[in-house]
Amino acid sequence: MRRPWSEVEFAGALRALESRYWDRHPFHQRLHDGLLSDDELRLWAANRWYYQRCLPQKDAAIIASCPLPEVRRQWLARIVYHDGVDAHSGGAEKWLRLAEAVGLERDEVLSERLVLPGVRFAVDAYVGFALRRPWLEAVASGLTELFSPGLLTHRLHRMREHYPWVAEDGLAYFTARIEVVAAEGQALLDLVVRSARTRAEQEACVSALAFKCDVLWAVLDTVDYYCGGTGPRGVARQ
Amino acid sequence: MRRPWSEVEFAGALRALESRYWDRHPFHQRLHDGLLSDDELRLWAANRWYYQRCLPQKDAAIIASCPLPEVRRQWLARIVYHDGVDAHSGGAEKWLRLAEAVGLERDEVLSERLVLPGVRFAVDAYVGFALRRPWLEAVASGLTELFSPGLLTHRLHRMREHYPWVAEDGLAYFTARIEVVAAEGQALLDLVVRSARTRAEQEACVSALAFKCDVLWAVLDTVDYYCGGTGPRGVARQ
Repeated sequence: MRRPWSEVEFAGALRALESRYWDRHPFHQRLHDGLLSDDELRLWAANRWYYQRCLPQKDAAIIASCPLPEVRRQWLARIVYHDGVDAHSGGAEKWLRLAEAVGLERDEVLSERLVLPGVRFAVDAYVGFALRRPWLEAVASGLTELFSPGLLTHRLHRMREHYPWVAEDGLAYFTARIEVVAAEGQALLDLVVRSARTRAEQEACVSALAFKCDVLWAVLDTVDYYCGGTGPRGVARQ
Repeated sequence: MRRPWSEVEFAGALRALESRYWDRHPFHQRLHDGLLSDDELRLWAANRWYYQRCLPQKDAAIIASCPLPEVRRQWLARIVYHDGVDAHSGGAEKWLRLAEAVGLERDEVLSERLVLPGVRFAVDAYVGFALRRPWLEAVASGLTELFSPGLLTHRLHRMREHYPWVAEDGLAYFTARIEVVAAEGQALLDLVVRSARTRAEQEACVSALAFKCDVLWAVLDTVDYYCGGTGPRGVARQ
């Protein structure tokens, strides 16, 4: 039996996956360089909505499969973060406001009419992973949070610069997320490093994070494919 | 309660989905026009392999959820068709021979190293559909067979014309499939039309077939996105 990685080695193996994080995806680069048309920005917001709206169910699946009350208590805050304490608060609501700020009707977003099948399949795979895999792997898949603070800050600046017509209120998703994600990511890393005891568990956590990177990347592959008329059915696929 | 469609109306609603069948996907059009590079042809064969190799499990999921012995008996032949009666026969083996004929190593295909995440998510969604939905809907999702005889014949001719370096033995998947798919599709349509009794069941079958069209289309979206250097990581994603 192989010896477990030290905490430093394990954390290093997880952090090494930053090269597969979606901040480097060509679509995000075009977004941040101000190269997206209004329709492309809307397609992105409407498709990313499907990811946002599935997150609380993904988090509930983790709680459902976790026998440790201290982990469940910690994780519960994530459901509240996304769903809010009422219909006017929460991360999902903030994403809807962003979608409205880029010119979408709320009902159109909620209808999911603009959600591309490839985006749906990728996000559903993420929720399915949380439903079927051990809670530790599902938790580890969320470690993309380690990589997101830089991306969020960069995006906020670039959106204010390149898409100044997007109202500041629409950017609340990002400003609110920046405030919490660094601490959340560190707490998550601590939990994963503390909980994975065997080398097999550690490697499964690394694989889970790689899987999550693939999910995010595939979401943007699909959105990018349908942008700019390069996709087979154009932006206004209906 | 709305009245059920007549058999003719129901079959018509199913056949109307032919416009969403993947024969019209830009990637297939480039394949059939002889415009694919050797590497692109290989990427297609290696990714389509993942679909082929999941089909017997999809079919077993349908049998697992079906309480009707006459349907299970009919469906069992599909598992045998894909898996063969030994390791040297069956549709999956024929697809592996095609992959070899376009220049891939068998072990490389079996390793699934070239399978793109978006393809995996789409195909897994199809298997998951068969695992979780009523057997009738899962069966109906296979009605893309109604649309495939023309595509298979067209592909066979165009591959012989545009990729003459692909050995004839490699095309056995298509020649064998052409022989059975027309009869299989008609039998499947008869089964679905006979089994769906309420309007709600009929509509669920139409939705299931639309879902399957989305699965196939999304597979090609992903392959196409990674072809010709337009994708973010190029054909030789590794």
